[in-house]
Formats: sequence, structure tokens, C-alpha cells
Amino acid sequence: MTEFELIAHYFTRPVRRAALGVGDDCALLLPTPGMQLAVSSDMLVAGRHFFADVAPERLGHKALAVNLSDLAACGARPLAFTLALALPCVDPAWLAGFARGLLALADSHGCELVGGDTTRGPLNICITVFGELPAGQALLRSGARPGDDIYASGSLGDARLALLALQGHIALPAEPLARARQRLELPTPRLALGQALRGIASSAVDLSDGLLGDLAHILRASGVGACIDTRATSQLMAESARETSASSALDPELLRQCTLAGGDDYELAFTAPPALRAAVAAAAQASATPVARIGAVQAEPGLRLVDAQGQPVVNRYASFDHFQ
Amino acid sequence: MTEFELIAHYFTRPVRRAALGVGDDCALLLPTPGMQLAVSSDMLVAGRHFFADVAPERLGHKALAVNLSDLAACGARPLAFTLALALPCVDPAWLAGFARGLLALADSHGCELVGGDTTRGPLNICITVFGELPAGQALLRSGARPGDDIYASGSLGDARLALLALQGHIALPAEPLARARQRLELPTPRLALGQALRGIASSAVDLSDGLLGDLAHILRASGVGACIDTRATSQLMAESARETSASSALDPELLRQCTLAGGDDYELAFTAPPALRAAVAAAAQASATPVARIGAVQAEPGLRLVDAQGQPVVNRYASFDHFQ
Repeated sequence: MTEFELIAHYFTRPVRRAALGVGDDCALLLPTPGMQLAVSSDMLVAGRHFFADVAPERLGHKALAVNLSDLAACGARPLAFTLALALPCVDPAWLAGFARGLLALADSHGCELVGGDTTRGPLNICITVFGELPAGQALLRSGARPGDDIYASGSLGDARLALLALQGHIALPAEPLARARQRLELPTPRLALGQALRGIASSAVDLSDGLLGDLAHILRASGVGACIDTRATSQLMAESARETSASSALDPELLRQCTLAGGDDYELAFTAPPALRAAVAAAAQASATPVARIGAVQAEPGLRLVDAQGQPVVNRYASFDHFQ
Repeated sequence: MTEFELIAHYFTRPVRRAALGVGDDCALLLPTPGMQLAVSSDMLVAGRHFFADVAPERLGHKALAVNLSDLAACGARPLAFTLALALPCVDPAWLAGFARGLLALADSHGCELVGGDTTRGPLNICITVFGELPAGQALLRSGARPGDDIYASGSLGDARLALLALQGHIALPAEPLARARQRLELPTPRLALGQALRGIASSAVDLSDGLLGDLAHILRASGVGACIDTRATSQLMAESARETSASSALDPELLRQCTLAGGDDYELAFTAPPALRAAVAAAAQASATPVARIGAVQAEPGLRLVDAQGQPVVNRYASFDHFQ
């Protein structure tokens, strides 16, 4: 199969919204007048972001999901994406599965594949995603103000628990492992929540490297600090651990680590003024996404953890870094 | 050096034209009203698109140049790009050189780095580039009509000659080798020509895989055929071979192969009606880019080569394919 046959067979479909799609030198997009374009790019490397033997359908889903998650964090609506793919070989069954998972998620969000590149090389997937939102309404990392509430969506830590189990570091019963693995391999980008938070959240970030580490991006960009209530964050604990007896067999400190610094959760963390608590609750309900208030923004720089009694908890929860 | 220090040190500069650049979940772009956005993505893999020991400054240049070449082929003006980079390790000297070459070319075209991703992995560079052009004025592959002239810009084959020399398949004297290697490692995207051809060219493509192979994309997309005059294409022959005595030592058939199917030239091939020959010449002059007329579009599908006497020449010049 030639490079062009490969593209034609697996990745070319009739253009819908874009002016021109796969197969020319460039794709052409005509953004809606008055809308700003949000752009993000994520690269996934075999052995680092995924196991080389992961089901290709799940990998296709995840490669796009982690990019859509960045759009969610800005409050943007997905429009289109490009796919650059380095493949060690042409494996039709693998490619068919990958394309199926990728395009199913794309279709469910009206996000069109408009171009890209294929080449031979160590397995590498690079997606650049485009969304749009009304000019000036993007949720940025830099808008948090002292006194704002801090929130996180969904639950945290399942992906890390699954990773630890698949690596053989911990044991999980079959059912919670399957659930945790689903969170690791089939993350759900919180697009509806992100869009519902436009005009409400003062800042937002998506949780790819771990809650505390990603929250630190907001604090740094906003020039503020924060106090996080570990009693509240414990309510975010991985469903796979919380809902089964598996949790009793797991070290509580490990569960805290997974919740606070697990990574690969693709939930949103965001801030909003206390006066908008009802609006936040309404946005959560409208987007059918659970949201928990976990702390407050403070003027003093740094990130402080406190327990149920308001006593300091040592923060030893380093987030994931690809170069450390 | 952490992932974030790496990004901050080498790739973050004050935002100029984009609404929001490196460091948030998304970059934000506000296209000029009435303009269409042209998007293209290219992935470069070590050992396939470049030698792993190539000078990092040249690699930075080339990684962006091959993307800008796609914008040139559409007639778009560069706006911005994202960079996703997988690195086997953090080598400050390498990164400084790479960033220098990348950003020098970006600056010379007013093309702003607005975001991206860094991760550890086998060396892989994926750039997605954004340009703009008046809506409806893009040069497409599908517009060639029977009777149109066929043109190519600049000269062809130097990059392939350099590759063959560096691989040890042929010998080139130092001076022509340096010139050929410059074409391989520091290609010049024909942006000014592409923009000057808006409203003149009926179709265009950039020459990354070889003249005949890339021309075939135009023919297929336009549902036409072509006749190419090999006397005219011999005038496009690699400068490194033409201007020195090196050519006398090289097999003429090899030189023809490099000219017609060399790859990595990043010139433009395009078509235009014969009535617009003066306009094509003016566009070439205005953009200071040599252009040669090399054949004609025909209704009959397929690509035919003829010699100076109009006799058929067998086409055995296959273009490059990453999966063959």
C-alpha cells in the first residue's frame, strides 16, 4: 500500500464544514465571523504515552481526546484537526482500528479531519486541533484572582491506578481494573463543561500531568497562590478505588498520590468567584459533569494543602514531567 | 531541565500577532475578516527525512521550510505555526541551534510560534503551519484544464544529488557538494511566487516527492493528463551538476532521474492558461523566482514525456514514497 493509498483508504472522507480537506497542499478553513480560533497540538509517543500493544481503536480515541481536552480547557467548540502519523509498518488491521476509534470520537464532536501527513518511523501520533469561540471569551490560565473558589471536575487517579496495575506495581481486581483502564485508554474530554463555563470561570486548565502540577500553571500564570482542602480532594478519588473493595487493599497514601498527581485524567480544574457558585453548579448540571469545590485562590504565592482540621499537609505530590 | 523550563527557554517569545501564544492550553488566532485559513502539517523523522547528525540549525530551518512550502503551493501568506517535538534527551547546544534555525526562518516570513508540545522519544518534529489568503483564491490541485501550460520554478535535483553523495553512492567535488547540500538542508519555500500566482495559476503543488510524482497529483485531482518536454526539464537540472565539471563525471540518466523524480526540491509546479504567459512571467519577476515552461495539460489522462524531436520517452522516474 502506498502512502497515498493509505491516506485515501483510512483517512479521507467527504469534506463537510471545512472549505477543503485531505488531499491538497493545505486544508482551508473559513472561521465564523467574529469567532477566535483556538489551536492546540499534542504528540503521543509509543512506550511513553501508551503501551505499544494498546488496542488501536482506543489509541485513536485517546490521541484525539487529549487534544480535545485542551479545547475544553479554553471553552472552545471543536471544528477540525490534522493528523500526522509515523508508522513502523503498514498494518491494515491496526490502521482500520485506529481510524475507527479516532473518527468515532471526531464525529461525536463534529470535529473534521482536514489534513496531515503519514511517514514511516517509530510509532508517533501528532494531532493539531482547531476550535472556535467568541473573540475574547477564552478561558485562560491567567485569570485567577485571590478569593476565587477552585474546582475540579469528575474524578481523579483512575488512569494512574490502571498504569500502575498494568506495569505490575499494584494488583487490582478485574472489574475495577477494567474501569480504571477505560479512564486511562478512553478519556472523556470535558468539552460541554468547558463551553458552559465561558463567562463564569476566571481561569481553567485541563488535567494531563496531575491536579496539583496543572493547578500550579494557573497559579503561576495568574501570579497567585492557593490553599487546597485534602478532605475535598479525597472526594475526587478514583472511582475504581472508591466504588469497590479494592481500595481497602491499597495504601491510602498511594491513593492520595494518584488523586493529587496521577496524570492522564483529562478533567478540568478551574477557578470562579464565590458569587458565581450557583452559575458553576448550573454549568455542571447543564453539561452533566460532576464538579467539586476543592480550595481557594490566595494572594500569597505557592500551593498549600490542609486537612479536615485546617492543619497543613506536606505537599510531596510531584506531577508528571517528560524530561525529569 | 524540566519540560516547562525547556519550552520557556528555547521556544517562548512575546506574542506579536496572535491573540495568545505559547503557554496556555490553546493558542488563539483571530484571522483577518474575509480571509480563509490555510493549514498544513508535516512530520520529520530522524533517519528518514534527515540524517540524525545534521546541523541542528539547518534542521530547524528545514522543519519549518517544508511546511511553509505547502502554504506557498496554496498561495497563502504565513501567519503562525505550532511545534511538537519528541527528543531522545535534552541537549542544550542542539536545542539552541535548532531554535535558532527555526525562528530565523519564521521571523523572515513573519510566522509566529504559537504553541506545541515537547516529549521524550525518538527524534521527531511535527510542525503545523497556518497561513491566510482571500477566501476563494487558494491555488488548488484540481484546477488544471486541457491546453494549460505547465511550469516549474527554480532548479531540481540538487537535494537528491546531495543525498546520494552523502550516502556514498556518487562522488561530488567539494564545491558542488556544498551547494547541493545547501539545497537539501536549507530549502527555500517559494512563498513570494505562490502569492504572486494567485488569480493566474489554475493549479499548483509543491515539489517534495519529485516533479513527475507531484505533478501527477495535479493531473489526478484535475482529471486531466499532460505532456512534458524533457528538453525543457533538462534546463531545470540541478545547479550543482550544471554549473561545474562534476556533471561530466555523472551518468546523464542519473541526472535526469534527479531532475524528474529527485524529491526534497521544494520548488513549485503549476499550470496556467497560455493567454496568461505574460502574467506568469511578471509574477516570476516580481518574486525574483526563475520559472520554466515544461509542458502542457492534455485531456487524455496520464503523463507522457517527449524529447526534443517530439518522440516519446519512457517514463521510468518513480517518485519517492514513504511506504514503498
